Amino acid sequence: MASVDRSLVANLPMFAGLAPAEQDELLREARSTRYPKGSAVFDQGAKADHFYLLLHGHLRVEKVTPQGHQSVVRYVSAGELFGVAQAMNLTHYPATAVAAVDSIALAWPSSSWNRLLAKYPSLAASALQTVGSRLQDTQARVMEISSEQVEQRVAHALLRLAKQAGRKVAAGVEIDFPISRQDVAEMTGTTLHTVSRILSAWEQQGLVEGGRQRIVLRDTSRLHVLAEDEAAKPRSKL
Amino acid sequence: MASVDRSLVANLPMFAGLAPAEQDELLREARSTRYPKGSAVFDQGAKADHFYLLLHGHLRVEKVTPQGHQSVVRYVSAGELFGVAQAMNLTHYPATAVAAVDSIALAWPSSSWNRLLAKYPSLAASALQTVGSRLQDTQARVMEISSEQVEQRVAHALLRLAKQAGRKVAAGVEIDFPISRQDVAEMTGTTLHTVSRILSAWEQQGLVEGGRQRIVLRDTSRLHVLAEDEAAKPRSKL
Repeated sequence: MASVDRSLVANLPMFAGLAPAEQDELLREARSTRYPKGSAVFDQGAKADHFYLLLHGHLRVEKVTPQGHQSVVRYVSAGELFGVAQAMNLTHYPATAVAAVDSIALAWPSSSWNRLLAKYPSLAASALQTVGSRLQDTQARVMEISSEQVEQRVAHALLRLAKQAGRKVAAGVEIDFPISRQDVAEMTGTTLHTVSRILSAWEQQGLVEGGRQRIVLRDTSRLHVLAEDEAAKPRSKL
Repeated sequence: MASVDRSLVANLPMFAGLAPAEQDELLREARSTRYPKGSAVFDQGAKADHFYLLLHGHLRVEKVTPQGHQSVVRYVSAGELFGVAQAMNLTHYPATAVAAVDSIALAWPSSSWNRLLAKYPSLAASALQTVGSRLQDTQARVMEISSEQVEQRVAHALLRLAKQAGRKVAAGVEIDFPISRQDVAEMTGTTLHTVSRILSAWEQQGLVEGGRQRIVLRDTSRLHVLAEDEAAKPRSKL
């Protein structure tokens, strides 16, 4: 158990509205843990004993249907709350959170949630914004999957990742964690074959630059045009 | 402006944790409005001036993409918070809310949100559960749309509606508001033609009973089997 200094968290939305003494108090109840790349913070279906704040790194959140179909639900970036199952009245985690790179998270016992919520309104506001922005993203994915061409969906997914976890590099904006074509396929409800075909075409056109587990957006404005293409017809749906 | 008696709301999650004097105080800041069937409480893109609690009736929440594709996002039932755009850091409503039947809602100014949240932790908890359960539902739709046969998706959608707003009738469980086959198509990312074909087959098999704007689930256990069919193969995804 490592002790976490207030300076690491003071600027995060969840802590920003609190006095230094309150920040210390909230931190004292947390334990910090390091998760090596590839390890799970929690598993889908496990009892939701803790809720978390990601201090460093990136997590990939995955979900498997009863039929065995796997999907990448989202990525979590530093500063975000996650695993707040308790806040949503769930007793078990609805998905698995895996470290996409070496990561560090703070954990609080779920049993403290209601008490902390009553004591620190900024925790409630932060949790609401976390869950709310996920709802917006997920809603956008429903609209995309049910009405858009697969090319538009892939463009939207890459732009969303770049907005959430983009890092300026010489060639453009790099998505700041390892991401495979299979991950992109699972985010967009399509196949590895289709994603590979689309990304290869985009590489040739200078829109993106790929590599093993690596994607750089070289021309975000042309990707935006592709994503929002008003001339695109809704695909025939079945 | 109608005055609302505490007895109408005392058992709702948002009010249940409050003392009677607090309930009265929270109610005094609200105004209550009647929305005739077919009228909009707010429109997609409008400034999010208020947040709401549905006291009576049912609302249909609709969203239109920039490409003009319309989708039914969800239905809101009595007792639920809605239009909490402010809580999600949105300045404008992301969707349109239309009364599916004659409905009554309480409205609070969005500008009071942060003050009320700090004063009444149960408001935060209620909002979190509202937004959280929507996130779960929306996530389930993403999984369904990207991995399931359209027949499974329709079965899931009907079971979800019955759970949210089912009413026991002689023939089974009736969805307690007017719902058209087009609505079901827009909820499941498919076409009117496909939904009609599926529902007609199910009617012949005694699974559902339909009518104009009316759906009764006659055999929910067989619908569950259809929805969860483990033998079902993921459809080929483009």
